[in-house]
Amino acid sequence: MKYRIEKDTMGEVQVPADKYWGAQTERSRNNFKIGPAGSMPLEIVYGFAYLKKAAAHANCDLGVLAENKRDLISAVCDEILAGKLDDQFPLVVWQTGSGTQSNMNTNEVIANRAQELAGGVIGEGEKAIQPNDDVNKSQSSNDTFPTGMHIAAYKIIVENTIPGVEKLRDTLQAKSEAFKDVVKIGRTHLMDATPLTIGQEFSGYVSQLNHGLKALKNTLAHLAELALGGTAVGTGLNTPKGYDVLVAQKIAEFTGLPFVTAENKFEALAAHDAFVETHGALKQIAVSLNKIANDIRLMASGPRSGIGELIIPANEPGSSIMPGKVNPTQCEAITMVAAQVMGNDVAIGVGGLQGHYELNVFKPVMAKNLIESARLIGDACVSFEEHCAVGIEPNYPVIEKLLNNSLMLVTALNTKIGYYKAAEIANTAHANGTTLKEEAVRLGHVTPEQYDEWVKPEDMIGSLK
Amino acid sequence: MKYRIEKDTMGEVQVPADKYWGAQTERSRNNFKIGPAGSMPLEIVYGFAYLKKAAAHANCDLGVLAENKRDLISAVCDEILAGKLDDQFPLVVWQTGSGTQSNMNTNEVIANRAQELAGGVIGEGEKAIQPNDDVNKSQSSNDTFPTGMHIAAYKIIVENTIPGVEKLRDTLQAKSEAFKDVVKIGRTHLMDATPLTIGQEFSGYVSQLNHGLKALKNTLAHLAELALGGTAVGTGLNTPKGYDVLVAQKIAEFTGLPFVTAENKFEALAAHDAFVETHGALKQIAVSLNKIANDIRLMASGPRSGIGELIIPANEPGSSIMPGKVNPTQCEAITMVAAQVMGNDVAIGVGGLQGHYELNVFKPVMAKNLIESARLIGDACVSFEEHCAVGIEPNYPVIEKLLNNSLMLVTALNTKIGYYKAAEIANTAHANGTTLKEEAVRLGHVTPEQYDEWVKPEDMIGSLK
Amino acid sequence: MKYRIEKDTMGEVQVPADKYWGAQTERSRNNFKIGPAGSMPLEIVYGFAYLKKAAAHANCDLGVLAENKRDLISAVCDEILAGKLDDQFPLVVWQTGSGTQSNMNTNEVIANRAQELAGGVIGEGEKAIQPNDDVNKSQSSNDTFPTGMHIAAYKIIVENTIPGVEKLRDTLQAKSEAFKDVVKIGRTHLMDATPLTIGQEFSGYVSQLNHGLKALKNTLAHLAELALGGTAVGTGLNTPKGYDVLVAQKIAEFTGLPFVTAENKFEALAAHDAFVETHGALKQIAVSLNKIANDIRLMASGPRSGIGELIIPANEPGSSIMPGKVNPTQCEAITMVAAQVMGNDVAIGVGGLQGHYELNVFKPVMAKNLIESARLIGDACVSFEEHCAVGIEPNYPVIEKLLNNSLMLVTALNTKIGYYKAAEIANTAHANGTTLKEEAVRLGHVTPEQYDEWVKPEDMIGSLK
Amino acid sequence: MKYRIEKDTMGEVQVPADKYWGAQTERSRNNFKIGPAGSMPLEIVYGFAYLKKAAAHANCDLGVLAENKRDLISAVCDEILAGKLDDQFPLVVWQTGSGTQSNMNTNEVIANRAQELAGGVIGEGEKAIQPNDDVNKSQSSNDTFPTGMHIAAYKIIVENTIPGVEKLRDTLQAKSEAFKDVVKIGRTHLMDATPLTIGQEFSGYVSQLNHGLKALKNTLAHLAELALGGTAVGTGLNTPKGYDVLVAQKIAEFTGLPFVTAENKFEALAAHDAFVETHGALKQIAVSLNKIANDIRLMASGPRSGIGELIIPANEPGSSIMPGKVNPTQCEAITMVAAQVMGNDVAIGVGGLQGHYELNVFKPVMAKNLIESARLIGDACVSFEEHCAVGIEPNYPVIEKLLNNSLMLVTALNTKIGYYKAAEIANTAHANGTTLKEEAVRLGHVTPEQYDEWVKPEDMIGSLK
Repeated sequence: MKYRIEKDTMGEVQVPADKYWGAQTERSRNNFKIGPAGSMPLEIVYGFAYLKKAAAHANCDLGVLAENKRDLISAVCDEILAGKLDDQFPLVVWQTGSGTQSNMNTNEVIANRAQELAGGVIGEGEKAIQPNDDVNKSQSSNDTFPTGMHIAAYKIIVENTIPGVEKLRDTLQAKSEAFKDVVKIGRTHLMDATPLTIGQEFSGYVSQLNHGLKALKNTLAHLAELALGGTAVGTGLNTPKGYDVLVAQKIAEFTGLPFVTAENKFEALAAHDAFVETHGALKQIAVSLNKIANDIRLMASGPRSGIGELIIPANEPGSSIMPGKVNPTQCEAITMVAAQVMGNDVAIGVGGLQGHYELNVFKPVMAKNLIESARLIGDACVSFEEHCAVGIEPNYPVIEKLLNNSLMLVTALNTKIGYYKAAEIANTAHANGTTLKEEAVRLGHVTPEQYDEWVKPEDMIGSLK
Repeated sequence: MKYRIEKDTMGEVQVPADKYWGAQTERSRNNFKIGPAGSMPLEIVYGFAYLKKAAAHANCDLGVLAENKRDLISAVCDEILAGKLDDQFPLVVWQTGSGTQSNMNTNEVIANRAQELAGGVIGEGEKAIQPNDDVNKSQSSNDTFPTGMHIAAYKIIVENTIPGVEKLRDTLQAKSEAFKDVVKIGRTHLMDATPLTIGQEFSGYVSQLNHGLKALKNTLAHLAELALGGTAVGTGLNTPKGYDVLVAQKIAEFTGLPFVTAENKFEALAAHDAFVETHGALKQIAVSLNKIANDIRLMASGPRSGIGELIIPANEPGSSIMPGKVNPTQCEAITMVAAQVMGNDVAIGVGGLQGHYELNVFKPVMAKNLIESARLIGDACVSFEEHCAVGIEPNYPVIEKLLNNSLMLVTALNTKIGYYKAAEIANTAHANGTTLKEEAVRLGHVTPEQYDEWVKPEDMIGSLK
Repeated sequence: MKYRIEKDTMGEVQVPADKYWGAQTERSRNNFKIGPAGSMPLEIVYGFAYLKKAAAHANCDLGVLAENKRDLISAVCDEILAGKLDDQFPLVVWQTGSGTQSNMNTNEVIANRAQELAGGVIGEGEKAIQPNDDVNKSQSSNDTFPTGMHIAAYKIIVENTIPGVEKLRDTLQAKSEAFKDVVKIGRTHLMDATPLTIGQEFSGYVSQLNHGLKALKNTLAHLAELALGGTAVGTGLNTPKGYDVLVAQKIAEFTGLPFVTAENKFEALAAHDAFVETHGALKQIAVSLNKIANDIRLMASGPRSGIGELIIPANEPGSSIMPGKVNPTQCEAITMVAAQVMGNDVAIGVGGLQGHYELNVFKPVMAKNLIESARLIGDACVSFEEHCAVGIEPNYPVIEKLLNNSLMLVTALNTKIGYYKAAEIANTAHANGTTLKEEAVRLGHVTPEQYDEWVKPEDMIGSLK
Repeated sequence: MKYRIEKDTMGEVQVPADKYWGAQTERSRNNFKIGPAGSMPLEIVYGFAYLKKAAAHANCDLGVLAENKRDLISAVCDEILAGKLDDQFPLVVWQTGSGTQSNMNTNEVIANRAQELAGGVIGEGEKAIQPNDDVNKSQSSNDTFPTGMHIAAYKIIVENTIPGVEKLRDTLQAKSEAFKDVVKIGRTHLMDATPLTIGQEFSGYVSQLNHGLKALKNTLAHLAELALGGTAVGTGLNTPKGYDVLVAQKIAEFTGLPFVTAENKFEALAAHDAFVETHGALKQIAVSLNKIANDIRLMASGPRSGIGELIIPANEPGSSIMPGKVNPTQCEAITMVAAQVMGNDVAIGVGGLQGHYELNVFKPVMAKNLIESARLIGDACVSFEEHCAVGIEPNYPVIEKLLNNSLMLVTALNTKIGYYKAAEIANTAHANGTTLKEEAVRLGHVTPEQYDEWVKPEDMIGSLK
């Protein structure tokens, strides 16, 4: 492999000749061989591209960066955002806890690529753009990395997570409406209970997801606050006046998202409670999804020796040994995602609570976990919707049989003959393996006509939505 | 001990003669000897008292309960709320996952105590009040327990947690203002960095708590939704028309808190995402508190061989072997609370994700953990405020010495001579154990006059709040 | 209330006259009003009683404590262990993170009660026993509290947790043997699969618990290591030679448990990985219990519209609204315990990872969580065994019906006609609602005689245990 | 792109012509677009290669597979293990919870590649090897995937995790010995305490890691148990007699690791407590590493305004804005790993506790998290050792200054003049800003000569290791 020499304040470093990165990136590659290379999420890289471009524009507007430098920096950022330089970001999550080296990776790639765009040769002649003094102007790692984190997180949540959850919510809502008159047995404690409709059951799932979406959206205001302009320890040292507000406006403009400068930069560097907050909502959604998917697979269990009230799509052969087996695989994928999100929540909390003084140095691990959760939830909801939820159908004969068998229909008699006599009927029928009606009449608590009039599953589903 | 005989649908049970509870409570006492007796939080018991009273009123207004029964039930509920019957609730958290037996405990205590209030003798003559048919009228365990949970959680959060956090926040805010001109060295990665003021540093803590309070308040709308009126599986079976809305209004009236009937009762029984959501915010506050308390003890460390920039109150002898030792004990208590809350969050999540069909049966464990967290955070904030935060003072001589020693003041030269020359100065001073000024001049990068003009800590703290 | 004056190095404090505790306990009571009073577990108090007695003996043996002092201290420790002084320990978990004040609480109670035993009056005349110089001789909080933690944890695990788990394991083993010939349908992915016996199914539960017990016992060696003798920072300052080994021997003798002095005292004060390790095993058992209890309630679900293969004891009326309902309440209690243990594991980990320098100051919260988990698991296993597991019976008619319905019996044909033809049979039978035999013959893959010979559930259960 | 047609029991599927995988893999690719493609860890793929080869050998030895088939299968497995077919495994973690499709991916790749090796053309003529009937012979997904998980986990732990932790442990041990005579101030509660040596301090770290290694090794016996031979539901249906024992022997032979057949196959499919157990030990190590790395960065903090007792290597420029800044970046990487492992532990626990009946369907997520933790811990320990621990040096002048300043040296006087007088000396010196000696003499508690004789830091470090 060919190399060129790059320098930083510590001296010279050999760098692969075909890469744009410089000395500090290469040092980090060598110093942090932890897990697979390139594990720093690309979403963070793109977040950096937005902010570097925005900083160049703001610096130029405020008179501290020349227009041609602004344009060179912007041009490279656009290339990054177009995905053309994805292979120029080899660093791992498990580096400096401030993400300094990913900031420098970006600075170096931009400066060297700009050298080319300016018609120069990397490492030769004067640098068109300096990584620290130009690309990083009015910035520090300590305010850029959290800004990159927030951009990445906000974007993936509004572009992937929320649409995915909403898509699933809409389908569940449609199913709730489609099956609003399908009366089935209810179950509490996994045991037979009074009836309800599939529509009612599914409306609970819809309500869970609606609450989750609301909770997630509630956190976006905190996530929209950007640290940029804080520099170093949060004071904004070496930034021009008005820069913090302006650079956030630029980012908002470039991303089309409502970012604002953080009201308090000291918090924005030293703590990432916004990530704790947002991921808390993601965890809530994961909890909901686990419940919903688990219910669906329980109700679809069988085909002959389970509950079997729902029919779900058969997408693939289910077993390498049991012929003809079909499994609730989408339920399994999404509940595994839920387990992952539960874990990620703890990783984020543990990182969040260990900030020291002016800087939290668990930034990359917090970012990695939130981005993973946001991606997985969004993707899994889409997958679950397309390959499972949309195809859910009631198994009418099973539903009817299980409904009519149930001893809990006796509850309808409570208001007529009281809880104790009703219990006597149910207990006797259970012991004798008989029907409620038989025992109700035999025990003399009701006449057959009364029984038929009072015990109607379709009258037991209430007037509640 | 003396006993009397109580009955339920399963038969007779011996109950201590001096207790109001009945057969089902006694069965539960015997069937669930798990952990210390009486672990079901009293907050839940009081939540039940509010809802039983409200249900009696709503039932009466809607014509399904006689006025004298309403008044008897209300009178006992008022006794419970006055703390007079605390010893009548012996059940544990680790019982039926729907809390059915705590519901019955309340029904039985109310019925038997009402018998006395009505001039009767427990177990003799006709019952003035039936536990199932009267006290539990228009209710089921499945909607009462979550209602009790929500009342308990909402109350403790607004009465204990939020005021506690606000009290601490206010004191930190006052400290931030009091020390707004005290310039000190900043630290990132635990290493010397550029200066900031104590006021700025503390403003970050204030901002964290403000964000946490906002996040917590965001969750209250979900917590204000009450399941009552759902009964059994969420359909509202055996409830009079309009009951759900009315009973929530009664609870709002009796508690003075903005409770409403849950829009979707199926969710309200089958899932407790509201608890996941609210506790997520409590966890966020715990994360913030850990960071803040940890910073304070680091800055107060010493007295002679630590950082020593802050002086905190000495409240007790710190060591049983080291004479004269004083420790940051309030910081330790509150960070232990943070660790507990981190754990409680997982317990709640694990419970929340395992609902089955129409009922989540992890209600008591979810309630216990949320109430514990809410109580501990509120109490710990008050304790920390009173015995630590309010007494925090700067150690001026130490602050000044550490500030002036710092090599990171060189950052002020970045915009004058560039990052690379500034780094050379800092590195040389570090290697030689000299001052920045000496090396800056010796290296020929600045004149002594320029150094004095450009490197002023008090000019490096920015214009940001 | 009457008070007396007690003194410590900070001055005078008013203490309730009827209590044995002194100045430092009283300060702590006032300084840490966090959560309910007296939350420091009594198990820890008893752990202290063992170690204080052992220290007195070791100190006397080594010539640094007089015999009469040894005897006075021992006498009070015996009273504590007999439960006579339980109300003398009012402190909370949320105090100094080293538990210093609980150490002093013990020292003060012992000294003052010894004053009485010696015929004196508390607060008058010369002290028969000094809390710091005598009771705490050769000790510091930093080595006593972890010693108390280890004693408490080891004891509760061997006296409560392990016997509880073993009792449940034994009953499940007995059930496994009793039902070793009951062939039933297996289920994977919640879907019908090939058959197995209940005995096989339950043997998996037994194996889980055996592995869990082994894992738990593996951790006891670390837990048996005692910090006592470490003093202050782990160096053993102010302890007589040989003291650490001797005092551990005394504790081993008094408790009857194999305690030894920690090989490394610096770890023993600064980290509590032994608690992380032991609780990891408790968490493993909780995970197992959740799986087992969940299976049992799924198989016992019904009675008419669920799976219904197992019959479990009906211990209490299950519903306050649905007459005759019986629920798997013991399963619910034990799975709630599992959720709690999952959470406690995180609390312990978060505490464990935050030690600083020579001392971990999350001792009380780590102790509280481990003791709670150990207690709850032991108690819940006993409760589950007595009120559920021991009464489990197969529901033979249901088991037989579900077994014979299953399409997965077709797997027996794989080795005869190949996976693909077998799948065709199963898929066709599923689509047509017919039996496997009908379709197998109709499709021409087997003769009726071959079918009957090859497809026998009782031949499909393998030779594996 | 070119495609060929592949078939499974559900029909035809288009597959990229240049790939070996077949219909079921392609279905899974399309059905589970969740997160980045190919997220199923290669370690699992290699685990499958070992077991497929072992199964072919065992099947052949037992007379149910022809030798030429055995050899073809083995040859492809060897290619997989040589890393030649890494791009043939495109599936994600978030698929069927049994990993069925990854099993089929392996079966299909082996069958199609074997077709080539046998001189055939994929998709043409008779198949040399059938994916289900040959490659998967005597197997099911339900026993292969857990077997692959166990092989992958065991291998990475003994090949990566344990050597990494041991390497770090050895270096810390060497440092402990090198600095065994360097007396420094101890700190408890972050506050000045009595002295100890760096050797003693580091010996605590060594002891933590030794305990962690022991705990981890304790779990290997459970991890060595392989499910293979269980098939379907654990009964071993369709496997030849003796197969389970033999195939485990083959795996042990091929891997050189002590694998054995699981004593209980029902547990081995239905629960993955072995993973919970092993990861519990990984979490313990993570907790230790967090403590150790945190201590080191605290002691290395500065360079001028922190603690500054240790000097750690400067590996990269530490700041993009603060020139000359050097940060404890390796400490940050490893503590971020610790946070991740804490989270992964919860993900594994949540997966582990949700098994249903005969199968746990959280296999892939449990495997992914354990493999990630094992990899990260091993790598991070090596990185930390090479780039930080090995270069740690004491900063002697700072250590001496901080030691001699300390007021806690007064503890040496406890045994001479008692705790109370010693406290008076320390408190007075603290209040007056004077030295201990000055106040000790001035208060008349000791003579100057006594002070010098009694208060010697080097005599205060005890005789404990």
